[in-house]
Amino acid sequence: MVLSSLSNTLVEDVVKAATGPVWFQLYINKDREFTRALVARVEAAGCKALMLTVDTPEWGRRERDVRNCFHLPEGLCGINLVPSNQSGVVIGQSGAGMGQAFTWMLDASVSWKDVEWLSSLTKLPVVIKGVCRKDDAKKSLDYGVKGIVVSNHGGRQMDTAPATIEVLPAVADAVGGKIPVLLDGGVRRGVDVLKAIALGASAVQVGRPVLWGLAAGSQKGVELALKMLRDEFDLAMALSGCQTIKAITRDLVSPNQ
Amino acid sequence: MVLSSLSNTLVEDVVKAATGPVWFQLYINKDREFTRALVARVEAAGCKALMLTVDTPEWGRRERDVRNCFHLPEGLCGINLVPSNQSGVVIGQSGAGMGQAFTWMLDASVSWKDVEWLSSLTKLPVVIKGVCRKDDAKKSLDYGVKGIVVSNHGGRQMDTAPATIEVLPAVADAVGGKIPVLLDGGVRRGVDVLKAIALGASAVQVGRPVLWGLAAGSQKGVELALKMLRDEFDLAMALSGCQTIKAITRDLVSPNQ
Amino acid sequence: MVLSSLSNTLVEDVVKAATGPVWFQLYINKDREFTRALVARVEAAGCKALMLTVDTPEWGRRERDVRNCFHLPEGLCGINLVPSNQSGVVIGQSGAGMGQAFTWMLDASVSWKDVEWLSSLTKLPVVIKGVCRKDDAKKSLDYGVKGIVVSNHGGRQMDTAPATIEVLPAVADAVGGKIPVLLDGGVRRGVDVLKAIALGASAVQVGRPVLWGLAAGSQKGVELALKMLRDEFDLAMALSGCQTIKAITRDLVSPNQ
Amino acid sequence: MVLSSLSNTLVEDVVKAATGPVWFQLYINKDREFTRALVARVEAAGCKALMLTVDTPEWGRRERDVRNCFHLPEGLCGINLVPSNQSGVVIGQSGAGMGQAFTWMLDASVSWKDVEWLSSLTKLPVVIKGVCRKDDAKKSLDYGVKGIVVSNHGGRQMDTAPATIEVLPAVADAVGGKIPVLLDGGVRRGVDVLKAIALGASAVQVGRPVLWGLAAGSQKGVELALKMLRDEFDLAMALSGCQTIKAITRDLVSPNQ
Repeated sequence: MVLSSLSNTLVEDVVKAATGPVWFQLYINKDREFTRALVARVEAAGCKALMLTVDTPEWGRRERDVRNCFHLPEGLCGINLVPSNQSGVVIGQSGAGMGQAFTWMLDASVSWKDVEWLSSLTKLPVVIKGVCRKDDAKKSLDYGVKGIVVSNHGGRQMDTAPATIEVLPAVADAVGGKIPVLLDGGVRRGVDVLKAIALGASAVQVGRPVLWGLAAGSQKGVELALKMLRDEFDLAMALSGCQTIKAITRDLVSPNQ
Repeated sequence: MVLSSLSNTLVEDVVKAATGPVWFQLYINKDREFTRALVARVEAAGCKALMLTVDTPEWGRRERDVRNCFHLPEGLCGINLVPSNQSGVVIGQSGAGMGQAFTWMLDASVSWKDVEWLSSLTKLPVVIKGVCRKDDAKKSLDYGVKGIVVSNHGGRQMDTAPATIEVLPAVADAVGGKIPVLLDGGVRRGVDVLKAIALGASAVQVGRPVLWGLAAGSQKGVELALKMLRDEFDLAMALSGCQTIKAITRDLVSPNQ
Repeated sequence: MVLSSLSNTLVEDVVKAATGPVWFQLYINKDREFTRALVARVEAAGCKALMLTVDTPEWGRRERDVRNCFHLPEGLCGINLVPSNQSGVVIGQSGAGMGQAFTWMLDASVSWKDVEWLSSLTKLPVVIKGVCRKDDAKKSLDYGVKGIVVSNHGGRQMDTAPATIEVLPAVADAVGGKIPVLLDGGVRRGVDVLKAIALGASAVQVGRPVLWGLAAGSQKGVELALKMLRDEFDLAMALSGCQTIKAITRDLVSPNQ
Repeated sequence: MVLSSLSNTLVEDVVKAATGPVWFQLYINKDREFTRALVARVEAAGCKALMLTVDTPEWGRRERDVRNCFHLPEGLCGINLVPSNQSGVVIGQSGAGMGQAFTWMLDASVSWKDVEWLSSLTKLPVVIKGVCRKDDAKKSLDYGVKGIVVSNHGGRQMDTAPATIEVLPAVADAVGGKIPVLLDGGVRRGVDVLKAIALGASAVQVGRPVLWGLAAGSQKGVELALKMLRDEFDLAMALSGCQTIKAITRDLVSPNQ
């Protein structure tokens, strides 16, 4: 599980409750000391990796949020982002959309050097999320990144960004198996997982299916959503004759070329 | 006619009533003795070929069946699958969809060796149904199969499987005319038959049109559905200037390339 | 104007009333003497060309006609097809669709030799209508045809036949300017005419627009429909910078390749 | 801002009120003296460039205008086109669509020589609007044009004209950076601006968004429409990692090829 830095549950509590490894998603803050403290806290909490989102120099203009006047419900806040010296501040309550609420924690000047800097802060592997180009994939290798996530932020950042499944093959080819390549965006069925792996992903991430499960049926709903994906993926493997993940090769997607 | 092993009519009765050759469709059962006995029974009944379905290591998750709580109507069962030593058992009545009802008769471990084994049981030619890749088509030749059916199980097994008409040319090219290549899936009009033959099929199979005819008009409906397909195919041949099946060549589909 | 052989007005009357040349469309009848007599009559009437339809070895199954129980209204018949020795017979009144009404006048055995035979009957140039392949276009030259019409019979003969505008370039290339290439099917706007000429047509034929004009506004409606097409075509020429028909070249359709 | 010659506000007043440079769009009139006088007036008014529309030898048949019986509202006229010697004439009030109202001011005989002639009348740079082909782009260079606009007149002139964004790359390649290439048509979002620049445009023009803003909210609406486009474009630059306009390169549109 990758815990969002916007989570409204303390990272320490999540790691304690988790039955598997927890990774932590973060942004590099304008205030680098903020980020340094957050990384230390996360590492101390027992997270196993840092996932740095790199497609968010600014917050995308999410028109649904704007139209719906999105704001965090009363009593919820990005609790992991409350600086220790401002423990009374409730963050993300402005009612003006995610963008305005969280702009303070983004830094448009983040560059590859900052990725190196982040790695220098921690023993945890740093994975970057938001790579959609083969040149960026190659640079990830140059800068010692331990994994990448092919992601367009669920299509909510850059208007008309290409689908991740379309850019995956070129990115995977550029990486050449040297580090894991994950994919998110558009994974709705087990066969989507199979296709992503066939086209070069080591694994996929899902967001909305879990939230839909949560909305529809609370904890049971989440469990069911994940079970459905897993069952469908098992079935897709069986029906395509793959006994192992390794057997899920690219020719599955275009078998006769 | 190819009689499904899930038929609710005894194979012996069907062969007796038939005016043409009857083939028998089957799966290889986890219990190989069950399969051996079924093959012997089918051969004794006078069937002319065995059609082994090979795209069903597990039953696909057919959501319509699940939503509709599909179950066989009372009084109907897969009568040809009732083992002789369990003659009182009514199979397929669980009400939990085809998948759960018939899982017992599938074997996910079936491999090319089992195809050889099946051939060894019988003098009947063995045709395999569910080939959509040119490499599998070539293996069919290696393992002595007498014919293949390009089929995606009517689109009900593997989610987002390619259309059979799209994969047919590569499969037919791989076979190179050494054994017959049949096609099913999506055949709704006489011109679909013409196109399939033009792209390399020896013949096509139809399922739903016959069932729709049955639902709409009982026996007369089936006869009409088949007559319509045949008339339309005759017309399509005439209008494309084909006096014989042999004259239905691939250039019909893209005449100016 | 090309007068259909199914016209309900005598060819002699049409030619007399016409202000421009009249061509006559015909089929080769099973009874060749019938055709010989028709050709003689048409030539005597003053027609300027024969247009032999070659895509109709059988009548297409036109489901709209079947569903609508199409039949000629009382008092109308294919008057030019009434053999002189059967002047009292009213043809095409069966109420069972065009297909059944007119099957008697088609001959599925018509071949290139019959085209030569037809040419031998008359001094009129013979144009064939229904060519959609480059090989047939080349044969047209071999058999002395004076022009061809790229036509799929308005899409009413062969189910899923390609659009004529798609096959036109290959056909035109095969003809190489040796004889005129006309196109019909899908011409609804002046810019469609421009495109057809750009892709190799010498001219286009229209059917439905004229009939729609007739249905909507009688003679005035037909005049308006034709005027609209002509005005739109004039405008399309002006807007694409073409001062002459000759200037309408293929690069108009894909100017930057 | 480019002021249309059909504007109902005097060019002198617009230039006075403007906070940035004003360009003037014009046609070459059948009466060349009319055009000569207009150019002199425009130059005297302080406009910074002339934008000659070259895709309008005739007015396109704009069926919406025809259906809506478009006419200028009472009291409005193309005031900049009122010849000085006919100051009482109100132009464009005929109620018969833009086409009939303004036909008098177009000249279908305009050719490249007239573009040279126009340039000779003025010290202002002459930009031509309506170039969609690479051969015309090259000729623009030959005839000393100072800039071109890839435009299909908002799709209102030539029926089924290609989208400007599709023809832009070939046109830009033909120009090779020697003069600016602008684009209009279909620019609705900031990311459309980014794509146009990525594919070779120096800048874009927008028409409808401004008018929609005007209709929806008067002056404030126009300001908002322009602000939205600018904000979205800024965001699109940030999200694609472009710190300067120069950094917006073609690979943004197909990053993995």
